[in-house]
Amino acid sequence: MKNSVNVGVIGLGGRGSGMIGVMAMMEDINILAVCDKYQDRVDNAVKKLVEKGRPAPMGTTDYNEVLNMPGIDSVYIATDWECHIKIAIESMKKGIPAAMEVGGAYTLDECWELVKTYEETGVWTMMMENCCYGEREMMALNMARDGVFGDIVFCSGQYAHDLREEVAYGEKNRHYRLRNYLHRNCENYPTHELGPIAMILGINRGNRMLSVSSVCSKSVGMKDYVRQHKDLRPTLGNAEFAQADIVKSFITTERGELIELTLDTCLPRFYSRGFTVRGTKGLYQEDGDMVYLDKKQYHKNEWNQKKFWGRAKKFERKYSHPLWQDTTKEMLDAGHGGMDWHVIRAWIVSVKNGTLPPIDVYDAAAWMSITPLSEISLQNGGAAVEIPDFTCGKYKNRKPKKDSIYDLK
Amino acid sequence: MKNSVNVGVIGLGGRGSGMIGVMAMMEDINILAVCDKYQDRVDNAVKKLVEKGRPAPMGTTDYNEVLNMPGIDSVYIATDWECHIKIAIESMKKGIPAAMEVGGAYTLDECWELVKTYEETGVWTMMMENCCYGEREMMALNMARDGVFGDIVFCSGQYAHDLREEVAYGEKNRHYRLRNYLHRNCENYPTHELGPIAMILGINRGNRMLSVSSVCSKSVGMKDYVRQHKDLRPTLGNAEFAQADIVKSFITTERGELIELTLDTCLPRFYSRGFTVRGTKGLYQEDGDMVYLDKKQYHKNEWNQKKFWGRAKKFERKYSHPLWQDTTKEMLDAGHGGMDWHVIRAWIVSVKNGTLPPIDVYDAAAWMSITPLSEISLQNGGAAVEIPDFTCGKYKNRKPKKDSIYDLK
Repeated sequence: MKNSVNVGVIGLGGRGSGMIGVMAMMEDINILAVCDKYQDRVDNAVKKLVEKGRPAPMGTTDYNEVLNMPGIDSVYIATDWECHIKIAIESMKKGIPAAMEVGGAYTLDECWELVKTYEETGVWTMMMENCCYGEREMMALNMARDGVFGDIVFCSGQYAHDLREEVAYGEKNRHYRLRNYLHRNCENYPTHELGPIAMILGINRGNRMLSVSSVCSKSVGMKDYVRQHKDLRPTLGNAEFAQADIVKSFITTERGELIELTLDTCLPRFYSRGFTVRGTKGLYQEDGDMVYLDKKQYHKNEWNQKKFWGRAKKFERKYSHPLWQDTTKEMLDAGHGGMDWHVIRAWIVSVKNGTLPPIDVYDAAAWMSITPLSEISLQNGGAAVEIPDFTCGKYKNRKPKKDSIYDLK
Repeated sequence: MKNSVNVGVIGLGGRGSGMIGVMAMMEDINILAVCDKYQDRVDNAVKKLVEKGRPAPMGTTDYNEVLNMPGIDSVYIATDWECHIKIAIESMKKGIPAAMEVGGAYTLDECWELVKTYEETGVWTMMMENCCYGEREMMALNMARDGVFGDIVFCSGQYAHDLREEVAYGEKNRHYRLRNYLHRNCENYPTHELGPIAMILGINRGNRMLSVSSVCSKSVGMKDYVRQHKDLRPTLGNAEFAQADIVKSFITTERGELIELTLDTCLPRFYSRGFTVRGTKGLYQEDGDMVYLDKKQYHKNEWNQKKFWGRAKKFERKYSHPLWQDTTKEMLDAGHGGMDWHVIRAWIVSVKNGTLPPIDVYDAAAWMSITPLSEISLQNGGAAVEIPDFTCGKYKNRKPKKDSIYDLK
């Protein structure tokens, strides 16, 4: 077991530069290298680490220099979506376990390539799906395992986040979302919601996803936003956005559960992952933060949902995940309410212990494949599209393992 | 204009016998006849009306006697779902305007027949969709008309009501739901949610529904319920329920809005119609009773949805529908929180004034057609199925009319 881990960080946009701030809080992480294709971001990252009292890392605009650097134990990849899998594959081929930020894939081929590279090299990639470590997501996982919801029938989640400003000003901020929103129409960000659901349903561990079908609304949110902002007219005044305002995707599973995913990023709204678990004995629902159980004292208020607003809080004492029982203010403040801290720890502990990560290439490939598959479904009027079994049958015998507090399986 | 209306009531199960109680509170309604295929229900209805100080109506088990009774101005139909359209058609053919309770259709043919009979006879049928008169639904309608939500992009609604007891003990209670749940798998109850949404989106009035596709979960809720109740074992111990626990249906419209309907009646949960309206300027959402608008003071709390729980209440003063501003305690207590009162008034006022009802055969046919179409879609793996234009092009020129406070158009 290693006492500390030498990492390289590739991709220093909003996410990458935020995450080096969290990593810098952890004494067992040494950031040896930082990389971005834009030199100013590299300079800022180096400066930021030095200001935090850390040794100045090597800075580069060529990620090959990071992968070839002696002593690197793992790399963290937070580039544009288009390069996630490509760089993870190159990293595995160099013998370096990779931590890959979230996003959707572009083709099924690259998902297969991710899996095959792991199988050929024996070197892993972990998908850094922080929402798998969300407080409520982990509490629901605990409750589901304890049978509180009974036989689970339906789960839903959404990436419901007003991104209009981020998308519209993307050009200026060199953000990859703009080009994606202009040219693609799909469930472009499935993993925040699908990750925690997949853990609860045992996807790739006894269960698997069979098909996905997607439907969408018109695309008017971004156009309306551009109309409202004069400074956007020169660049986006005549732009047509391919991305629908709302995309719904339905996934069927071998065990008969239905999963609903929603992408909802172009209209004004409060943030919500809309995380919902429904079973024969009860439910958790994020909107309203509600738990409802099949018990007499619940039935008497069934017509008055207000009685259940915030009720989930009462289950924290019994069902909070152990990870969350020990969550300090420092972790909470580190980013996204504690999730960022925990997902980094899950990665680093896997590197230190030389164990497989809790979210592996099979998970990453399956979850990320929803993006190109939803695109195909939308192009075919919502027809159901088959989801490959990236485990090639191994899902049947892949068992939950619980040898680390970070294991979600 | 008539001063009072002579009605016959056909169908005296839970809904019919409840509604005669409401009608008996209205001085301008004379219930001349009550009918059900079960004599005990007829006897109880007669008794109930006499106890309320009303003249004893004619009681019969043959609805033809009601349709043939001299002086009947209109009939109210609350039989099993299977007979709604059949009796409405017979009523129109006899020259009697009908009020038809909610439910789905069984075939497209009967939907077409409903429309054709109206067109041939000039006698109308009103669908008694009480949820079109719901307080929040009408407030949202007002807000939508006033542009508060901007360009509307997405609407959703659900019939989310734990009906396990009603379905399981249906045999004993002679309820039509049991046979439907045993033998059919479809969106069997689309109108509570689709009705109010159709009014907001101008369906059949400038806009129309194009296609529906449905997906579903497994069916385990009813089996689990039967297992828990020993007294059900003799009759339902080996029963297989065809109806999925959760059915989701997606409707596309000519103007590009996406509509999501959910049937969710076989798992424990609080009641919710999940009514949601999303536009370029804001949203209403029933779960949490939230309004969120695209304004600075909302954005600052976008990460904390709790701040918006119950916020819709603040919009009542400005946007409550005039109908609801004058709603008395008597109306509220009459049934389903006031909706039953209002839908009866809408019907009776149409009869008295000799005007067309606010919810007509084109609405009824379109909304009810979702049931057989969802069944076809589910049988075909979720394939999108075309929704007929029951107006045969007239929807393009059908205008909203506002000559009565009950008009929803």
